[in-house]
Amino acid sequence: MSKSSDIKKLISKFLETRQTTSRICEPLAIEDYIPQPIPDVSPPKWHLAHSTWFFEQLILVPYYSAYKIFNPQFSYLFNSYYNNLGDRVLRKNRGFLTRPTVAEIYEFRSYVDEKMLEFMERPVLPEVLETIEIGINHEQQHQELLAYDIKYILGSQPFYPPLGDLFSPPEQKSQQSWLKIDGGIKEIGAEGEGFVFDNELPRHQVLIRDFEISNRLVLNGEFVEFIDSGGYQNFNYWHSEGWDIIQSEEVMAPLYWVNVDGEWCHYTFKGLQKLNPNLPVMHLSYYEAFAYAQWKQCRLPTEFEWEAASFSFEWGDLWEWTESAYLPYPGYKIPQGAIGEYNGKFMINQKVLRGASVATASGHSRNTYRNFFHPSARWIFSGLRLAR
Amino acid sequence: MSKSSDIKKLISKFLETRQTTSRICEPLAIEDYIPQPIPDVSPPKWHLAHSTWFFEQLILVPYYSAYKIFNPQFSYLFNSYYNNLGDRVLRKNRGFLTRPTVAEIYEFRSYVDEKMLEFMERPVLPEVLETIEIGINHEQQHQELLAYDIKYILGSQPFYPPLGDLFSPPEQKSQQSWLKIDGGIKEIGAEGEGFVFDNELPRHQVLIRDFEISNRLVLNGEFVEFIDSGGYQNFNYWHSEGWDIIQSEEVMAPLYWVNVDGEWCHYTFKGLQKLNPNLPVMHLSYYEAFAYAQWKQCRLPTEFEWEAASFSFEWGDLWEWTESAYLPYPGYKIPQGAIGEYNGKFMINQKVLRGASVATASGHSRNTYRNFFHPSARWIFSGLRLAR
Amino acid sequence: MSKSSDIKKLISKFLETRQTTSRICEPLAIEDYIPQPIPDVSPPKWHLAHSTWFFEQLILVPYYSAYKIFNPQFSYLFNSYYNNLGDRVLRKNRGFLTRPTVAEIYEFRSYVDEKMLEFMERPVLPEVLETIEIGINHEQQHQELLAYDIKYILGSQPFYPPLGDLFSPPEQKSQQSWLKIDGGIKEIGAEGEGFVFDNELPRHQVLIRDFEISNRLVLNGEFVEFIDSGGYQNFNYWHSEGWDIIQSEEVMAPLYWVNVDGEWCHYTFKGLQKLNPNLPVMHLSYYEAFAYAQWKQCRLPTEFEWEAASFSFEWGDLWEWTESAYLPYPGYKIPQGAIGEYNGKFMINQKVLRGASVATASGHSRNTYRNFFHPSARWIFSGLRLAR
Amino acid sequence: MSKSSDIKKLISKFLETRQTTSRICEPLAIEDYIPQPIPDVSPPKWHLAHSTWFFEQLILVPYYSAYKIFNPQFSYLFNSYYNNLGDRVLRKNRGFLTRPTVAEIYEFRSYVDEKMLEFMERPVLPEVLETIEIGINHEQQHQELLAYDIKYILGSQPFYPPLGDLFSPPEQKSQQSWLKIDGGIKEIGAEGEGFVFDNELPRHQVLIRDFEISNRLVLNGEFVEFIDSGGYQNFNYWHSEGWDIIQSEEVMAPLYWVNVDGEWCHYTFKGLQKLNPNLPVMHLSYYEAFAYAQWKQCRLPTEFEWEAASFSFEWGDLWEWTESAYLPYPGYKIPQGAIGEYNGKFMINQKVLRGASVATASGHSRNTYRNFFHPSARWIFSGLRLAR
Repeated sequence: MSKSSDIKKLISKFLETRQTTSRICEPLAIEDYIPQPIPDVSPPKWHLAHSTWFFEQLILVPYYSAYKIFNPQFSYLFNSYYNNLGDRVLRKNRGFLTRPTVAEIYEFRSYVDEKMLEFMERPVLPEVLETIEIGINHEQQHQELLAYDIKYILGSQPFYPPLGDLFSPPEQKSQQSWLKIDGGIKEIGAEGEGFVFDNELPRHQVLIRDFEISNRLVLNGEFVEFIDSGGYQNFNYWHSEGWDIIQSEEVMAPLYWVNVDGEWCHYTFKGLQKLNPNLPVMHLSYYEAFAYAQWKQCRLPTEFEWEAASFSFEWGDLWEWTESAYLPYPGYKIPQGAIGEYNGKFMINQKVLRGASVATASGHSRNTYRNFFHPSARWIFSGLRLAR
Repeated sequence: MSKSSDIKKLISKFLETRQTTSRICEPLAIEDYIPQPIPDVSPPKWHLAHSTWFFEQLILVPYYSAYKIFNPQFSYLFNSYYNNLGDRVLRKNRGFLTRPTVAEIYEFRSYVDEKMLEFMERPVLPEVLETIEIGINHEQQHQELLAYDIKYILGSQPFYPPLGDLFSPPEQKSQQSWLKIDGGIKEIGAEGEGFVFDNELPRHQVLIRDFEISNRLVLNGEFVEFIDSGGYQNFNYWHSEGWDIIQSEEVMAPLYWVNVDGEWCHYTFKGLQKLNPNLPVMHLSYYEAFAYAQWKQCRLPTEFEWEAASFSFEWGDLWEWTESAYLPYPGYKIPQGAIGEYNGKFMINQKVLRGASVATASGHSRNTYRNFFHPSARWIFSGLRLAR
Repeated sequence: MSKSSDIKKLISKFLETRQTTSRICEPLAIEDYIPQPIPDVSPPKWHLAHSTWFFEQLILVPYYSAYKIFNPQFSYLFNSYYNNLGDRVLRKNRGFLTRPTVAEIYEFRSYVDEKMLEFMERPVLPEVLETIEIGINHEQQHQELLAYDIKYILGSQPFYPPLGDLFSPPEQKSQQSWLKIDGGIKEIGAEGEGFVFDNELPRHQVLIRDFEISNRLVLNGEFVEFIDSGGYQNFNYWHSEGWDIIQSEEVMAPLYWVNVDGEWCHYTFKGLQKLNPNLPVMHLSYYEAFAYAQWKQCRLPTEFEWEAASFSFEWGDLWEWTESAYLPYPGYKIPQGAIGEYNGKFMINQKVLRGASVATASGHSRNTYRNFFHPSARWIFSGLRLAR
Repeated sequence: MSKSSDIKKLISKFLETRQTTSRICEPLAIEDYIPQPIPDVSPPKWHLAHSTWFFEQLILVPYYSAYKIFNPQFSYLFNSYYNNLGDRVLRKNRGFLTRPTVAEIYEFRSYVDEKMLEFMERPVLPEVLETIEIGINHEQQHQELLAYDIKYILGSQPFYPPLGDLFSPPEQKSQQSWLKIDGGIKEIGAEGEGFVFDNELPRHQVLIRDFEISNRLVLNGEFVEFIDSGGYQNFNYWHSEGWDIIQSEEVMAPLYWVNVDGEWCHYTFKGLQKLNPNLPVMHLSYYEAFAYAQWKQCRLPTEFEWEAASFSFEWGDLWEWTESAYLPYPGYKIPQGAIGEYNGKFMINQKVLRGASVATASGHSRNTYRNFFHPSARWIFSGLRLAR
């Protein structure tokens, strides 16, 4: 990584990542950058500033002595969850921050970009390059969250404004079939050269049994059958906690589905659309994915089964809920300091999702990547693949 | 009111009111128009649209046959509490509305202004003129709420941005003294020609006793003494409900007061300022006003005492909490229809404030005006005058 | 009051009051003494102990030097809201106290009774006699709350257990008619010798207008008409806060009314009974009373009107909601110390009820008595009389 | 199982189990049977009735035609979470049920016992015997919950009443040492004849790595060092969710620990006691167990490691938190009907505990038993064993 061509690649990846973030926000009105309709959803403005804050606080401040902080208040405002890096605004209050303005945050971005380029043109220690690589991956993760959060904010407007032809999974034409996978001891986790997150390591052996897995995701049309057969009314398909949630929140379909005069529509970035039965079903919680699988007398794959089988099917349109809880791999150690707060401290009450989605940055599409969310999350780009 | 000079006056008052609303919002960034940091505070954007909605729904739609609705979605979006006029967005969700944008709302304002002028140049029935008059007064009330809400939104920013030299009550130079008022039967409530709200009627007789009332409001410097003497720690000065609130919310000073290194500062539209001891104390709840009066072995005046005495002191810098609950005057009848939802349905669990504030539209400064808020309200421009 | 016959009367009133409290609890199972199904409702056990605690802490401890405290823990446990008398169990946690047991609390009662009798046989200062009188009245108030709370606890059992023929208001046979009352200056508040609470004083003059008031309370049968006409579905009859409550809590009838296969029943101490149309309607909130009056194009009387008219109708079956907020009479001063916490600190967000109920101790039935509750209270023995 | 000696064993196990339940409750006052201080804690009365309800609803009603239901209301009242068996009282409202009384519930127990004995003396189908076996195990689980819940109810009393010398884990005298365990493919899960729960099946192979595990549980004295070193103030040891909980609930020590004048005490069934440093630390949440392990630079074992190593250390004093999430074993199928609601529907957001505690019925002490609770549970008899 320390050779000059590597540096050039890193610089170009840095620039491309930073520009992509801005491009995702291009169709937004200033107003859309502000609100936080549920605690899970952060204002787009906040993502723009926080991903920039990462480079300022973890690269420029500690390693670039000529650097002058853009605005000392920003380090307080745009810290997300890094307790090691000082105080922060309560997550639930992010939607009340009107100042700094969106324009000021774009200035902050330009300023940090410029300084990062200056900095990267000088000799840089390998471990700093690694942190820059993490910063780029961190921002790519926020690009995907931006897609989720923008969709939620726009989808909360009473009249479903369209934003453009963005982030659409393609139609599925193939017939459903079952792929047989032989069991045995499998190597699980990342190996080799490219960037990976600490939670993908160490590579280790897992014993799995023979199983079958579907060649494709479950489709909208198939999920409608589950609804029509009373799937949301029969507690036998549900976890106890899932059942409580769908009862108290009166959930009767995936998020963004709206029943208009007896016909299913769903909100996409193009606005409110008639439901296309050939698209993979999207915006399910783990509970809904599990209930569907129960109804089908199937199950969800574990993350190990998924990884072992992933050579044999196409993936990448939607994140796929697995049966696996998000836990450390054997031998995993939480790194020290702020970077250590990145993954390890979330290893509780979360389910692993595997694959990638149409909103995932290309560098993140690898079959060892472990995405994770609370089982109740529905605003993410999640889908479901059956196993048995 | 139906003569042509009256119409001209009304048109000019209409225009002036509409322009004043825009002028109040002039220093805002687009971002400041959006959030709702507490349920009491509405986004400025919402005030701009709702006050316009009033003219569209209560004047143009029913009485101007040539009128074309600007956008049918707006009548759903900007209804506030008029159940008689159909569905509405839940109050607590106003801060999530990013669309229509601020620019679209200003277009809505211009469009309705233009149509209102067209309409008012034609012959108009007296009762419609009355409703226009109400609409103007309604918007003036929202101008004052705009001042409160803008202050709260800006005052919620971690770094207290200044907005300009707006809405500052003047310093108080006069010595405190007691004015003696003779008791007896007093005429209370509005009379004569100009516009008044229904809750100021009917004019009626109230028997009051001899009392004394202060010539001026309590000042910041005086209130600091209450704090320093442990006033916020001694439950004997407080109502049971007030004590619960200051305990659970850890209230130790009026809203917007900040103790910076042992020195009291307060947030004003100029930013965070050292506390000026000669300004009237502001942003008190009724509970705090009452506790201060208890500590002083005085009390708050009733709204009848206040009205009867108002000829003898200056008022108009801050709304003054009274001891009176907000109740209908004897003989008051709730009007039928949407207008009837204006005042009567709030006549519970509210205290009357009398006078006016530096944010009050000039037409609202009359000594029979009955302002009202929950006793816990602190974001309003409230102050306190002692009686005994 | 200091003459020996007065002392004898006081002793006999003390004994009778203490015995009445026990008699009210006689039909309870031990289990019924424990729970607190809503924060407003205290466990019967708690009432028994708290009313005893009053005599221990305010009479025996300060004035009877030979007195030995029964158990020092009790003074912490059974303080209710007297901040002046030290720490206390949070109100919402009363239902978790299983120890001391019910038997131990009856021992506490016997012990304090015995010591009080010893003490009262010695010479006692007049001001101490006054506090004893307050203690008796305090316990009588708790007798009435016991009736409410026992009804709520038993009424929360899924199968509505009967408890006996207790506290039933009598049937109303008389035709409804309107009594005309002349306005003018009326003397309001207590006078003369017997015990009264501080909030009934000072006696003062109030100016009222001519009005009419109903000869009797509204009956169940009449209230059914309001329900049948859609009264709970038409917001025009309701205060904004009342409407919010009936919406969010899905209120569709008075408390304890149950619709069994299309027929109205209600829970009484005799168990679940068919609704008797000739009984006065009971267990209304102020909001419901107000809405009914609106629907009838009438109103509720003020507490002054009620007091002025009370010579001309029968009252005493149910407390009657008035339109008046609970406020101090002109010239009222909150007494110093613990006694001062009795009434004054509740003078906010409460409505006055006048009259008495079938659960009221006889000494409390006077036409100057000011009962008060939050407008949402429904578990009390409240009814409604119309005025216009 | 169908031979007559097996039946005799089952009858004797049934009787012994039923008597043990009553014996656990013997020291309680009637009052202690009623409250539900937190939703997790059920009233003892409820456990007594619910475990009896199980035999009535799942054995006597479907299989014993001569059986007459004791009281039809009980089947509504004492259903816990079996949606398949009809309606039920909301869990959070169990503490308000005063009726049926405790005496009536003991009558219900005697009645069902008598009928069960009658029934078991007749020829019984093997599958019914299996359900009786489940009912016995179910009641044994409730015996342990009774111990937890009684401790919580008594421990919530402000003055910590003693109940007797019950359920005390023994002192630990042995030195801490590390047992080395070889990795490889291990057989995990139950086998052989005796009763096991469905979640212990199917027996299957798991690949584990070499590891070390402690010979004994962590002791109070060791845990005090963690507290003294600031363990509850350093977020680096904590999961993000654990940190939020200890912040918001101000947790600074295990449950039932009280700092009295600088000295640690803890509530046990003997009352408030000085902390014994040689007892295993108890009443930890998973978060606290994990944080302690992090501080020690160790970790918790997985449930597979624990089971594989369990031959080599003593266990059974306290349940031991593992790192494993509670998930189905490969090939597990949720059974149909009410029995199917027993385990499978809780397989989300729970951590597995292994071993047993001093409150565990002897039949439950097997090294394949999978106990499970939310990671925040602290009222259970939980402890902690380190691995690395």
